[in-house]
Amino acid sequence: MGVSEFFLLLVSILVAAKLLGELAERVGQPAVLGELLAGVVLGASVLGVVDPETEMVHLLAELGVVILLFEIGLETDLKKLMAVGSSAAMVAFAGVVLPFGLGFGVALLLGLDTIAALVAGAALTATSVGITARVLADLGRLDDPEGQVVLGAAVIDDVIGLIILAVIAGVVAGTEVGVPQIAISTVKAFGFLVLAIVLGRFFVPGLFDLLGRLGRESNLAVMGLGFALLLSLAAERAGSALIVGAFAAGLVLQPTLWAPIVREGVVRLGHFLVPVFFVAVGAAVDVRSFGEPGVLLLGLALLAVGILGKVLAGFTPWWFKGRKLVVGVAMVPRGEVGLIFAQMGLAAGAVDGGQYSALMLMVMGTTFVAPPALRALLKNGDPPDPNPAAASELVTEI
Amino acid sequence: MGVSEFFLLLVSILVAAKLLGELAERVGQPAVLGELLAGVVLGASVLGVVDPETEMVHLLAELGVVILLFEIGLETDLKKLMAVGSSAAMVAFAGVVLPFGLGFGVALLLGLDTIAALVAGAALTATSVGITARVLADLGRLDDPEGQVVLGAAVIDDVIGLIILAVIAGVVAGTEVGVPQIAISTVKAFGFLVLAIVLGRFFVPGLFDLLGRLGRESNLAVMGLGFALLLSLAAERAGSALIVGAFAAGLVLQPTLWAPIVREGVVRLGHFLVPVFFVAVGAAVDVRSFGEPGVLLLGLALLAVGILGKVLAGFTPWWFKGRKLVVGVAMVPRGEVGLIFAQMGLAAGAVDGGQYSALMLMVMGTTFVAPPALRALLKNGDPPDPNPAAASELVTEI
Repeated sequence: MGVSEFFLLLVSILVAAKLLGELAERVGQPAVLGELLAGVVLGASVLGVVDPETEMVHLLAELGVVILLFEIGLETDLKKLMAVGSSAAMVAFAGVVLPFGLGFGVALLLGLDTIAALVAGAALTATSVGITARVLADLGRLDDPEGQVVLGAAVIDDVIGLIILAVIAGVVAGTEVGVPQIAISTVKAFGFLVLAIVLGRFFVPGLFDLLGRLGRESNLAVMGLGFALLLSLAAERAGSALIVGAFAAGLVLQPTLWAPIVREGVVRLGHFLVPVFFVAVGAAVDVRSFGEPGVLLLGLALLAVGILGKVLAGFTPWWFKGRKLVVGVAMVPRGEVGLIFAQMGLAAGAVDGGQYSALMLMVMGTTFVAPPALRALLKNGDPPDPNPAAASELVTEI
Repeated sequence: MGVSEFFLLLVSILVAAKLLGELAERVGQPAVLGELLAGVVLGASVLGVVDPETEMVHLLAELGVVILLFEIGLETDLKKLMAVGSSAAMVAFAGVVLPFGLGFGVALLLGLDTIAALVAGAALTATSVGITARVLADLGRLDDPEGQVVLGAAVIDDVIGLIILAVIAGVVAGTEVGVPQIAISTVKAFGFLVLAIVLGRFFVPGLFDLLGRLGRESNLAVMGLGFALLLSLAAERAGSALIVGAFAAGLVLQPTLWAPIVREGVVRLGHFLVPVFFVAVGAAVDVRSFGEPGVLLLGLALLAVGILGKVLAGFTPWWFKGRKLVVGVAMVPRGEVGLIFAQMGLAAGAVDGGQYSALMLMVMGTTFVAPPALRALLKNGDPPDPNPAAASELVTEI
């Protein structure tokens, strides 16, 4: 690839992603939906500008998703999360089990093989912290009891989702699906996360204190990214996934004095690179496959159980006094992690092109449905938080 | 290249560049010197980690230098520059002519052919705005009369340097060196710059006003980069150089309301990508070639005339009341533009590996010599500006 070709590709990706992202926000949808659509439009089945299998696109997209998970980790306060309490944990747990079970069952019923059905079920598990928090903040509801439970549950199920991801990655890589393999993968994924956080919190803050005292602040963000890249490589070596390592790196740095500085630099880098990931994900969608009745049926069935599973999960903490329907609906949007499952499944050959498109339909559908539903539900409730601006500062910008 | 290999390469480049950059600053040298040394150490002739001809390294380095020139353009106030007056213009003009003539002559004397001698002379012309401004700010002297003249002259000779670059690029690409070719290249380069600025200032501010009013601020920086990439492609098509287009894009946006927002985002992106350029430049140096007496002799001779030419240029505005030696010494550091000449010459086959190393020796030598000399000179002068922090905010962070 020459320099001109590279620059043109980059301009197409960035301009299309930002324009359609803005447009999505104008019509009350999250920007990430516009970026995915930009990918679909630029991809092989429409304009043919972006081929996600080009080395350059592939590598920059991987860098983008590592940056995104590092950002999410940098914003995830483990202590606060543990204090949010039993309601969030219950919603998170039920919100993983119900969609996974329903999705796996529906996929098997529609004739998918076991591994493809596992990928489909797994892609249904994780609520998108970024999208959910953005929607709640835009509505000024982040500090409501419902908002707190949703935020806590979304973060917890993201962590569970990342562990499931590592398990599924192990299963997909192997030839047989058995209890021992799943157990080993769980231990590896959970073990890596725990070990990285414990060791990291012991050694890394001192290192960054040193770097922060000695050097320029602008260098801290670069060093932070270097740390995230190294930990993501370590995670892959340990049999986990790149993004688990990047998320762990964020969790390790989050309580340090330097987290806001690192976060600021990394978020701004993410403005340029995260869209490359979403565009690459969208570009892999073959819109022609929606013409096949099987694909459309699978996509709509997964979308239905994806919505149902999360809404039911919202009702599981019977002791919670707030509006359970609001909690359930707010948990519906899938995002990053669901997309990563779909992409990983496609790359490993566990799902085919049509099944991938069905999963994309599910992810995009849940993301599309939730914001207007939430807005309608909350109109009939109490008045919103008078200070939404302060709340929205807490939120990932995707 | 696989993802693991790409991440490891990126970590090596970023960590080595930032650590050696910090180290350079600790010993009173500009960070860019450390980043170049990091490239030399990572390059083929020492550790062999970074090969600047790998597609990935090459493309990211090109992106890095385009970002750097876009940053410099975003900080260059054409109006202020014209008001700085005759002294700055005189120093800039003499500071281009004297080193070019001396360098060309010395190179011919030492047996280089005409085109290689032209590249050598051209690489001697442009003072590094970034390095010079950083050094003056660190010493609290940006607002002194000497500081103002130096800053103006450095910006003007950067612009002249970029035009010379386009001329030399045209000459190097052609087979013969004649007055008509040089005239055509000058017209092309100057014409492109003028046309881009005039048309750009007419159409672009309105476009960015629209984007700024409609969308999120974080998207403006991404759109700004997109504009810079497009204009750099246009410059190349017009027979000029990529970086001339990027610089013009910066000049076009600089007077708009949105320049600070675009600049903030682009500078932060630059923290990650500009070092890739400097490391790639350093990695192309073959340290073994310094063992050849011819290379070392050429490098030292060019270094000598490089220092002499700029110091003499400082004395040319005879009407200037400040300390002329301070002006001359402050003009000595070469940087970005000199490196780009050397790299372009190498890529086009106009200079060989040994001559490239000699040019690198000159660039690094001038950058190495100036800060301590300036510090020694200014110790004997009047007390420094009491508020250096405010002044240093004006400065490119490289």
